[in-house]
Amino acid sequence: MKQIAIITFILTLFTLSSFMPQQKKKVIFFGDSITEAGVKPGGYITRITELATKEGSAAKYDFVGAGIGGNKVYDLYLRLEDDVLSKTPDVVVIYIGVNDVWHKRSYGTGTDANKFEGFYNALIKKIQAQGAKIILCTPAVIGERTDFSNELDGDLNLYSNMIRNIARKNNLPLVDLRAAFLDYNKQYNKENKESGILTSDRVHLNDKGNQFVADEMWKALKQL
Amino acid sequence: MKQIAIITFILTLFTLSSFMPQQKKKVIFFGDSITEAGVKPGGYITRITELATKEGSAAKYDFVGAGIGGNKVYDLYLRLEDDVLSKTPDVVVIYIGVNDVWHKRSYGTGTDANKFEGFYNALIKKIQAQGAKIILCTPAVIGERTDFSNELDGDLNLYSNMIRNIARKNNLPLVDLRAAFLDYNKQYNKENKESGILTSDRVHLNDKGNQFVADEMWKALKQL
Amino acid sequence: MKQIAIITFILTLFTLSSFMPQQKKKVIFFGDSITEAGVKPGGYITRITELATKEGSAAKYDFVGAGIGGNKVYDLYLRLEDDVLSKTPDVVVIYIGVNDVWHKRSYGTGTDANKFEGFYNALIKKIQAQGAKIILCTPAVIGERTDFSNELDGDLNLYSNMIRNIARKNNLPLVDLRAAFLDYNKQYNKENKESGILTSDRVHLNDKGNQFVADEMWKALKQL
Amino acid sequence: MKQIAIITFILTLFTLSSFMPQQKKKVIFFGDSITEAGVKPGGYITRITELATKEGSAAKYDFVGAGIGGNKVYDLYLRLEDDVLSKTPDVVVIYIGVNDVWHKRSYGTGTDANKFEGFYNALIKKIQAQGAKIILCTPAVIGERTDFSNELDGDLNLYSNMIRNIARKNNLPLVDLRAAFLDYNKQYNKENKESGILTSDRVHLNDKGNQFVADEMWKALKQL
Repeated sequence: MKQIAIITFILTLFTLSSFMPQQKKKVIFFGDSITEAGVKPGGYITRITELATKEGSAAKYDFVGAGIGGNKVYDLYLRLEDDVLSKTPDVVVIYIGVNDVWHKRSYGTGTDANKFEGFYNALIKKIQAQGAKIILCTPAVIGERTDFSNELDGDLNLYSNMIRNIARKNNLPLVDLRAAFLDYNKQYNKENKESGILTSDRVHLNDKGNQFVADEMWKALKQL
Repeated sequence: MKQIAIITFILTLFTLSSFMPQQKKKVIFFGDSITEAGVKPGGYITRITELATKEGSAAKYDFVGAGIGGNKVYDLYLRLEDDVLSKTPDVVVIYIGVNDVWHKRSYGTGTDANKFEGFYNALIKKIQAQGAKIILCTPAVIGERTDFSNELDGDLNLYSNMIRNIARKNNLPLVDLRAAFLDYNKQYNKENKESGILTSDRVHLNDKGNQFVADEMWKALKQL
Repeated sequence: MKQIAIITFILTLFTLSSFMPQQKKKVIFFGDSITEAGVKPGGYITRITELATKEGSAAKYDFVGAGIGGNKVYDLYLRLEDDVLSKTPDVVVIYIGVNDVWHKRSYGTGTDANKFEGFYNALIKKIQAQGAKIILCTPAVIGERTDFSNELDGDLNLYSNMIRNIARKNNLPLVDLRAAFLDYNKQYNKENKESGILTSDRVHLNDKGNQFVADEMWKALKQL
Repeated sequence: MKQIAIITFILTLFTLSSFMPQQKKKVIFFGDSITEAGVKPGGYITRITELATKEGSAAKYDFVGAGIGGNKVYDLYLRLEDDVLSKTPDVVVIYIGVNDVWHKRSYGTGTDANKFEGFYNALIKKIQAQGAKIILCTPAVIGERTDFSNELDGDLNLYSNMIRNIARKNNLPLVDLRAAFLDYNKQYNKENKESGILTSDRVHLNDKGNQFVADEMWKALKQL
């Protein structure tokens, strides 16, 4: 009788555990059009899910895309409460900066360097106040030429430097996409083309680019 | 005995009232460099205090400047909590928009029209949630020519139209400085000069300009 | 005998004159994409030919389009010799200015006001040195709103004022398209729409716009 | 007698030669504010004269400054006849490009890449048609940071690449100031400062910068 009781107890535990809510890590990818496209088939977030599945850890994660086309750092700040904090994420991946630089040229509505830094720090402060972990990313490219002759390379380098400094000061993990893209292009873009290596149009990711970003981010996510 | 009781009662009331905290209306002027200069001697906020003093109502108001040079609508949003809400104002005068337009040209970092509207509405929502009254202002001028040949007149008109619509929709008082400046210039700037009428440098207020803005705002403040 | 000789002489003259090359007026329209489209079916130059035909004077004119998309005033100067002077026109219609203003916003490559004036004057000087007559035009619109809330109205007004002054100083005929378009829009664009009245896309002429420009230019051409 | 005759002949030749007009090489430096400042005391053209004097060849040269502040490539084209060709130079040093890039940001009036190339080629064609030799220069810097994080590095690299290609295609000597400045800064600007190494303000030459440019240009001039 005693043994039966024990077995019953064990079975009950087992049954209960299978019904217990799996404690998934909620990861929110917070960004612009690149992230908005990331949740589509072939997108970098979709591919991160695939990587997790392949490694048998998909059940441990809940990957959520929170990207909106045209967003700059202050747009993230405006919708931080609604799109991120209210969803109580465990991890927030901040992937922003392309439009802050690009829109200077295309619309005259980019973001001043000092204000980029100010809003970026404000994002970090509010997310940390809620207890979530944060991963930072540098903006990859606006043009894939490797000799720094893409029109906006100067600012992309400057703003990436700022993000690297913020990561260092706050001891936060950094996915340095800009550095990684440059390395990749130096190897595989010998013709110094503007696009077609990791992007389709100088900015947005093609298949290779989505996989590349997925790989880089997945490495960082696993280390958390 | 009855009379003494009455006199004592009256004296008591009188004494009490003189110790009761004077319920001042705290008015915060929330804006950019024009407002930052407004608290200086000769500035428009200083002149509003003078107008109130002249009319014997200075004791009823606490005028607070919260202007920072270079600010755009999203900068106000970033510091709304610290510089406005935490001070529990009774009235907030929002006077913003010049840099949102101007910086498109000078730095490539102006504010997109739809985002200007988005942040403006977000400001109103948060201020109203705390119960303060709001007065809106249109950005006056970047150049005082009256034939709409100032470089940024197009956007100033567009963004002013947006503010007028926001005032209408939210049933908020509007100090339409842009319209008022144009009327004044049509009368007193017959040579169609770029500056020197109400501004010293096309944007910032000279003495006449500060008095003009003070007069316009004081009219609106008294009506609250 | 003498009379026969005279009659023969007169008949000979008459016959000769009918074989003599008709002295046509060569009119070159010198401009940007609007003029490039002007020679297409429905374009404003095609329609000017139709107006001339209707009035029986088509044989007196040779209308030549010399418009290239994206051209600014200095592009006209660069190709003045090849595309205009080498063709020895009788009349040159200069219709430029939209891109000088527009590209400030879209590419950061507009034309400074003082340089616009400098190149414009250089064009006139060189064309006049060759003896051709000149008709000037103001740039019509970048957006058809009538309350001067189109983003680039300020500069369009400024640059149009410069062209008006150049016309006045040089005593040259002016087709003031900007003024004419505004008048038309005030009457027919009561909803204050950005496009769709005389343009298809805020800048380029729709059918009505092409006819409108043809009518305005034809009036000026007939007076030469 | 024969010897005397010979000596007399030699003396005569010698005397004649000393009275013959020295055939000086006229070198015109054609550029912007950097070249405008070049003729001042301490300026790079003044220093080239000093270098020639030191080497005893000053008498062989006539160095002429033709720089005007704010000039872009098309401004050079507009004043080519008056300021260069009419002076029948032997050598023209074209030193332009900073404003073509810089004014994109500061005024919205930079020069499109394809038009930069077009006007540059037109300059070369016209100068060569008159028989003068040409030396090309790349625009040095707008900011002296060495990690390509100066805002306009992308375009400066692109436009410099165009000039390098034009030099190659036309087999023209090139003073590659951009490359030379970068090398110098990599060695002497270890702190990655924006200015103060070869420039006073990120663009205009300080004493060291003027000497550096003088040295580089003098090397090229001597080889002609």
